[in-house]
Amino acid sequence: MKKLFNVAVVGATGLVGRTMIKILEERNFPVGNLFLLASERSAGTVISFKDTEYTVEALMPDSFEDIDIALFSAGKDVSIKYAPIAAACGCVVIDNGSFWRMHPEVPLIVPEVNPEALNNHNGIIANPNCSTIQLMVALKPIEDNFKLKRVIVSTYQSITGAGQKGIDQLTAEISGEIPQQRASKHQIAYNTVFHTVSDPDGFSEEEIKMINEPRKILSRPDLPMVVTCVRLPILGGHGESVNVETEKSFHIQQLRELLSNSPGITVIDEPLVDKFPTPLDAGGYDSVFVGRLRKDTTVDNGAYLWIVSDNVRKGAATNAVQIAELLIEKDGLDFERKELIY
Amino acid sequence: MKKLFNVAVVGATGLVGRTMIKILEERNFPVGNLFLLASERSAGTVISFKDTEYTVEALMPDSFEDIDIALFSAGKDVSIKYAPIAAACGCVVIDNGSFWRMHPEVPLIVPEVNPEALNNHNGIIANPNCSTIQLMVALKPIEDNFKLKRVIVSTYQSITGAGQKGIDQLTAEISGEIPQQRASKHQIAYNTVFHTVSDPDGFSEEEIKMINEPRKILSRPDLPMVVTCVRLPILGGHGESVNVETEKSFHIQQLRELLSNSPGITVIDEPLVDKFPTPLDAGGYDSVFVGRLRKDTTVDNGAYLWIVSDNVRKGAATNAVQIAELLIEKDGLDFERKELIY
Repeated sequence: MKKLFNVAVVGATGLVGRTMIKILEERNFPVGNLFLLASERSAGTVISFKDTEYTVEALMPDSFEDIDIALFSAGKDVSIKYAPIAAACGCVVIDNGSFWRMHPEVPLIVPEVNPEALNNHNGIIANPNCSTIQLMVALKPIEDNFKLKRVIVSTYQSITGAGQKGIDQLTAEISGEIPQQRASKHQIAYNTVFHTVSDPDGFSEEEIKMINEPRKILSRPDLPMVVTCVRLPILGGHGESVNVETEKSFHIQQLRELLSNSPGITVIDEPLVDKFPTPLDAGGYDSVFVGRLRKDTTVDNGAYLWIVSDNVRKGAATNAVQIAELLIEKDGLDFERKELIY
Repeated sequence: MKKLFNVAVVGATGLVGRTMIKILEERNFPVGNLFLLASERSAGTVISFKDTEYTVEALMPDSFEDIDIALFSAGKDVSIKYAPIAAACGCVVIDNGSFWRMHPEVPLIVPEVNPEALNNHNGIIANPNCSTIQLMVALKPIEDNFKLKRVIVSTYQSITGAGQKGIDQLTAEISGEIPQQRASKHQIAYNTVFHTVSDPDGFSEEEIKMINEPRKILSRPDLPMVVTCVRLPILGGHGESVNVETEKSFHIQQLRELLSNSPGITVIDEPLVDKFPTPLDAGGYDSVFVGRLRKDTTVDNGAYLWIVSDNVRKGAATNAVQIAELLIEKDGLDFERKELIY
């Protein structure tokens, strides 16, 4: 009989949390008992999983005692406080927040890209940023075959990346109402906005994540990353306009075939008949869609890519569940209990 | 007494044509008689200019006999056929279409950037592509002071660039109706789309314009241009995420001051307090707005810029009227009548 695992979803009522629950069901994850946890305010919410209704409970320090795997997507403060508590109980945390990602003892995993990094962990595993995940799935075969020399990215990010408050602001603005909650001081509908900037050099927090996380995931600590992140009134997924420069030369058709045969990637690249990936088309899928492949002849070995993926699924919930699957496959649920210093 | 000029607007009922009329009025252009021309279908439309109502007339081969300056924005076929007819009558054509732009004997003008190129013309002057104009205004001071080595652009273009049919499609989709006319096979609302691709290497027509036109305007025929153009459900203007590499070194504050003191540019760059250019904010203005200035340390002399401008005004109508003003200033209304071969 298949072994079952007790799973907690922390932040179960949020956009990503709800999608995690849906994906556990879709992928028929071997769930024994399911625990849905959230803030006290959200406790009592009823969410169904495989035809059973579950009542969301308030997250408490003793919530993790019977849990094997906890998927966290409940904001930074919850990750800081509760991920170590859960790990101390022997529960493996897969955290969708940014706080733990760059910690040297926390693996940052995209299962198609660096599964080997999961071999050693201390109970906390980080799920990368949504824009990073889709970029990594598409760039990994290029790194392996041609070695990346410089990566230039401009993102076209769905407002769903700002969670429910982003969706609420957009929806209100579209219907001419005053938003009850906002993700940006600026209007989002019919506009472009940026993520929060707190860096004196002017990079947004999202841009800094997209510069640092790929370096860790690809074990290329000095990889030149050039990143501009833009948030848009779009739904379904994030787009990325990417230019790569590589050490080795390639033909564009070779790149197209390589990507077509790589895990997690679907190539849609028939621009002459108007076929290319779009965020709306990518919505609801787990693939990373790549198109608009073109040779960039301004450098020795250059290419253009247009990369799109569902930021809530592959960019967050699906990737987290895939990490949990990989963990089981690798028998990685036992770990050395060690307090991580942050 | 100020000399007055007879002006025609060809394509007077279109989005750009109507804006041209508005801008002639706003800038108090020395209009003698005004002629509003359009297709037979649009003839009879009444449009007001300086409190007088004008009736749009059908464009005919003899429409240009009394005209000094004709502003064209009526589609490619009209430009091909009627621009030479007008020029043969001694009327100077300022054409907003793409057909004549790369002709070696047609000046392609952004008044802040290459006014000297207006010194010789044969009656047809081209207005650059909207995305090109704003890019040129922002890059000209960089070219002059630090010399451009490579330019990488990803655009965030307003659907208004597709004219009324783009706006109609977006409006219908937002309100859940079936669009009466479409600018894209794909849904535009909440999505990203691309311009038409007919090039076997996969570049869109818009991308090819943005690669070629800056080279002509800056007289840098080999300038390495890396361009991806994306159309978005946004209004008010186009955004551009730009990375430049230059021959000479600079400090980012030096770049900020240089741009702040350059013609046609407004720098809005206080990201720590959420101040940056947005398309909606740029709408209705003629400036090119620049922000998100950051050093790109992955190359010797690199910088990031975020460039936004009203694509219908500075990107089309205003630039055309500015060319007309420059022409008058330069006494450039007389020209050698010479048939241009295309």
